[in-house]
Amino acid sequence: MNKKDIENCYERIRTRIQRTPLLHSDPLDSRLGKGHKIYLKCENFQITRSYKPRGALNALLKKPKVPVVTRSSGNFAQAVSWAGAQLDIPVTIVMPENVSSIKMEGTRKWGAEVVIAGTTYQEQYDKVDELLRQRGEGHSISAFNDLDVIEGQGTVALEVVEQMPAFRHFFAPVGGGGLMSGCATYLKETDPNYEVIGVEPEGAADFFQSRQQGKICRVENADTIADGLRSPSVGEINWPILNRYVDESMVVPDQAIIESMRYLFEEVGLVIEPSGATSLAALVAHPEWEPKGDMVFVLSGGNVDMKKFMVWMR
Amino acid sequence: MNKKDIENCYERIRTRIQRTPLLHSDPLDSRLGKGHKIYLKCENFQITRSYKPRGALNALLKKPKVPVVTRSSGNFAQAVSWAGAQLDIPVTIVMPENVSSIKMEGTRKWGAEVVIAGTTYQEQYDKVDELLRQRGEGHSISAFNDLDVIEGQGTVALEVVEQMPAFRHFFAPVGGGGLMSGCATYLKETDPNYEVIGVEPEGAADFFQSRQQGKICRVENADTIADGLRSPSVGEINWPILNRYVDESMVVPDQAIIESMRYLFEEVGLVIEPSGATSLAALVAHPEWEPKGDMVFVLSGGNVDMKKFMVWMR
Repeated sequence: MNKKDIENCYERIRTRIQRTPLLHSDPLDSRLGKGHKIYLKCENFQITRSYKPRGALNALLKKPKVPVVTRSSGNFAQAVSWAGAQLDIPVTIVMPENVSSIKMEGTRKWGAEVVIAGTTYQEQYDKVDELLRQRGEGHSISAFNDLDVIEGQGTVALEVVEQMPAFRHFFAPVGGGGLMSGCATYLKETDPNYEVIGVEPEGAADFFQSRQQGKICRVENADTIADGLRSPSVGEINWPILNRYVDESMVVPDQAIIESMRYLFEEVGLVIEPSGATSLAALVAHPEWEPKGDMVFVLSGGNVDMKKFMVWMR
Repeated sequence: MNKKDIENCYERIRTRIQRTPLLHSDPLDSRLGKGHKIYLKCENFQITRSYKPRGALNALLKKPKVPVVTRSSGNFAQAVSWAGAQLDIPVTIVMPENVSSIKMEGTRKWGAEVVIAGTTYQEQYDKVDELLRQRGEGHSISAFNDLDVIEGQGTVALEVVEQMPAFRHFFAPVGGGGLMSGCATYLKETDPNYEVIGVEPEGAADFFQSRQQGKICRVENADTIADGLRSPSVGEINWPILNRYVDESMVVPDQAIIESMRYLFEEVGLVIEPSGATSLAALVAHPEWEPKGDMVFVLSGGNVDMKKFMVWMR
């Protein structure tokens, strides 16, 4: 997969997705910019309020048109449900018992069937396999470990470069690595001078460990409020891409994530979910880090339980 | 002043202002759209978090380069202060005693001198005159009753038409009428089929009364949470323009404004001040009104005291 594949993908999906704004905020520069500008790529304004429909739609367009049965607890579930509705493909999502009601509603809204199965990733993957066997047709799609999904997520960076090519640092969160492997590919094959930085919560810092050890490491039972970044490890397809193209890996505590949510709320007027605010939290958690130019932060999603949000913002 | 003037104005100011996003939200459509789409023109993401810099910058560019002494309690103050800083023009703002600290800080931030004078519009206008006499140079600029300001505010509609020409209804708030007279001119001279609707809070419904009586009416001591819309009447320059081009005038109670703020907060993830949410409140307050096509709502600003905001959103 290369830059050209991401460009072709964009032609395939652009009329159905939102081109999200790249916002600039003076108050945020004053607080965190150290003399450089901060730009926010607002995927919270994407359809279903996260970047995930880009990859989900591309995957459903490119793969055989058979029913989809897949596992997700959150934003990918809503995205696949939406993409299935666009293309008339039946979708079943296996979700954990403790799924938030807002994410279940968001998934059902677009017509997907929701099946609840256990609390662990493994229980849900087993249920996906069971359903596929029972039904005798269909396939599962990984939220990140899939080249078609990665191409779609890479269109986030493509839009950023179209909107404002002259920046130096690009920050995005790393969970399974789908968003970051697509974006890093696009950026580095456009201009190797772009510096690409992946950010993770302390309680799910498997990518940081993987880079240190030079192989995929796992963090079971991730502990962080950033529920979109809890996957135990990056995908096998993502790892070599991330390893090749990501310049730096940064880790942030949950408290810095809450503080960056607060800056975005009070200074910019945005409601961002913890995973979505994790990239900006790098500046909060690492005041010693010195930017060498303007910075782009991917705000990856805005699906947050409003009761929790109000408590965090108190 | 006509459409061409607004186009020329846009060429003058476009490199210094933000081109704000026109957002679409499926959940908002489901709640309020009645089968049509709702688009949000997000002037809360403009510099200083309101549309006012467009007109302030245009006025300072076109008028003699002398110091500005003017009255404002809010968003125009911040906008003139910002525009003065851009063009190296000294700015003094006369503000009321009860001005919110957030708006005073926002004004001082860009370098303007702030002078506090009384609680009524008249006391502040008197202070402006006194300062101009004492200093022997400079002029005052109205926040709305000024053709250069109106041209600038009309660029909001110009951007909307560039971003998405195929809509039917255009909603914007009416205070002094600067935003609405610029936007209505641009829209009606582009296509008379655009339907232009001005929205006011019940406690400051001077434009509604003016239309009924066919002459400018005043509402002294306006009573509404929408502090940007409390001017006692529309301007003399604005009135004939509004009278010619605005199709309908709608009035909303403060409770509907709070409810539209809540929809924007919970369903879209936006922090909007009461004045800024007033246009959308028309749909909340008038469920009997039937759209004939897609709708655009100008979210005119996002400068809100966060403590009050949190109380309203409870």
